[in-house]
Amino acid sequence: MANVHLDVTPTGSDARDEAEGATCCPPPSPGPIGTVEEAERLAGLLKALAEPTRLRLLSLVAAHEGGEACVCDLTEPVGLSQPTVSHHLKILVDAGLLTREKRGVWAYYTLVPGRLRQIAHALDFTR
Amino acid sequence: MANVHLDVTPTGSDARDEAEGATCCPPPSPGPIGTVEEAERLAGLLKALAEPTRLRLLSLVAAHEGGEACVCDLTEPVGLSQPTVSHHLKILVDAGLLTREKRGVWAYYTLVPGRLRQIAHALDFTR
Repeated sequence: MANVHLDVTPTGSDARDEAEGATCCPPPSPGPIGTVEEAERLAGLLKALAEPTRLRLLSLVAAHEGGEACVCDLTEPVGLSQPTVSHHLKILVDAGLLTREKRGVWAYYTLVPGRLRQIAHALDFTR
Repeated sequence: MANVHLDVTPTGSDARDEAEGATCCPPPSPGPIGTVEEAERLAGLLKALAEPTRLRLLSLVAAHEGGEACVCDLTEPVGLSQPTVSHHLKILVDAGLLTREKRGVWAYYTLVPGRLRQIAHALDFTR
């Protein structure tokens, strides 16, 4: 089996280029999962995603004006308290799926560019 | 927020068409996750995937000759016992990611066509 490197490490300039440049076709598949380490890295990311509230929070941040949102924008749509929402947001930040920027009273959350697409590509190893 | 139906129910003819027909561009994104039910369904699928051995098993089945493999083909590459591998395969079958067909002594496992791609599309809601 081909031991192709599966790039699901925290996103850098490559992921950003991908997010901004791609308008149609995704880049070639990274191929089958070659090593235990690759599988563990991808599984860790999927675990952070595999929770209904966190999926909804990512979706809400992505859909929010300017692609960023603060906790104050998110509590009402998901119907949960601010500490609970902040807890889920922290898990998404720690997994490298969201960035957090403190401005004044609130912290603002943005999707890490290209990150979800990168995971989606890694998952679709049948392409 | 648009309440677009996120089709991650067990795959049918649509998913099969998608898997066989798509050579370049994926179909349009289903958009943001609109309902709690959609988020729960996707989270359930991701939970089944969020385990290193299961990711490797899916990858091995996909890469195996003819796109199908029996437990006897999988124990050695993942370095685990047959009962453990069978346990993981059952979770993948129950989640609708693999099909299982008994032939003679062995059961043979195949990826459900289009299923991983469907999940990858559902995840990439920034497209």
